[in-house]
Amino acid sequence: MNENQPTREKLFSVSHRVDAAQRTRRNRHRGGILWLTGLSASGKSTLAVELELALFGMGCQVFMLDGDNVRHGLSADLGFSPADRAENIRRVGEVAALFAEAGTIVIAAFISPYRTDRDRIRARHPDYFHEIYLDAPIEVCERRDPKGLYRQARAGSLKEFTGVSAPYEPPFSPHLTIHTGAQTVDQSVKSLIDYVERRLRT
Amino acid sequence: MNENQPTREKLFSVSHRVDAAQRTRRNRHRGGILWLTGLSASGKSTLAVELELALFGMGCQVFMLDGDNVRHGLSADLGFSPADRAENIRRVGEVAALFAEAGTIVIAAFISPYRTDRDRIRARHPDYFHEIYLDAPIEVCERRDPKGLYRQARAGSLKEFTGVSAPYEPPFSPHLTIHTGAQTVDQSVKSLIDYVERRLRT
Repeated sequence: MNENQPTREKLFSVSHRVDAAQRTRRNRHRGGILWLTGLSASGKSTLAVELELALFGMGCQVFMLDGDNVRHGLSADLGFSPADRAENIRRVGEVAALFAEAGTIVIAAFISPYRTDRDRIRARHPDYFHEIYLDAPIEVCERRDPKGLYRQARAGSLKEFTGVSAPYEPPFSPHLTIHTGAQTVDQSVKSLIDYVERRLRT
Repeated sequence: MNENQPTREKLFSVSHRVDAAQRTRRNRHRGGILWLTGLSASGKSTLAVELELALFGMGCQVFMLDGDNVRHGLSADLGFSPADRAENIRRVGEVAALFAEAGTIVIAAFISPYRTDRDRIRARHPDYFHEIYLDAPIEVCERRDPKGLYRQARAGSLKEFTGVSAPYEPPFSPHLTIHTGAQTVDQSVKSLIDYVERRLRT
């Protein structure tokens, strides 16, 4: 699409781009989005970091997206209203799809509490999107409460906190569920690696 | 940053992420943004596609961003007003920086006519941003006019067309200038590859 109007700018003869098959041959895995969804303190960031390290060690092209590298940059213009949260998740989904197109396994770690937001990404990028539900009972998450967020939410000083004063809508049919309340980190990472080996390795 | 409030969510002990040095060792090049700016028909898309193919062939991790893969997805909510164009370029800059952080050489091909938009990316990501000016006289671009856009702009049916009815602000001090009005595509691609070898290869 040309920036001046919605047509593709082509000069001379434009060769085709590097395609997905070439990238897959090089990397020995397909690109894809591992979308980790779950309550605060369900283990998203921990597992994402450990999985990134493990996959990198296996020779994969891998990158992690989370609030840390998105909220200060791409979504710096967004706040925490419901509409802004939805827009944040939409953008992350689109960026993740660009990484997948580039052949990367992108690990997206976001609470992303609403089915409609996650399903929109799935609908737009069905070949890339893998929904991975980190299923931990809220009691476990609340007991962990590494930052005291649940405590603040119960006290009413944190508004619209997922699981306390705002809903979390679990996936109806996730590609993978990990019971992070019962499993250790190592067991959980192993489940994720097994999934990658089955679904993304070539 | 946690999605529920602006603090980092940490569970158990979170290991460090895969860092830039590890990615550079693996890829044998640093990540970076090759930002191609220039008039419509100055050769941005052509050079971006050819450069992507060439760098991929050399074993680099490389990906191209342009209107085609950004305007339909990440920036699908944006129109072509001045504010929306600026926001589009801002987002592209942030996404490009994420790719660079992932160790990729990202080629961004956008007219990006305003210095202030480009300088903002440079200021935010000085270690990644390489401004490459495709300098072709407007007479040459207008003679090429592969899509008849200049003709429409002159006739007044395309409003605010860069170089005709809207300004193009050339970079004051680009990292590299390519005279795409005088050089062949092959010569231009060679200049770009030489630049990558000097600046991003390790």
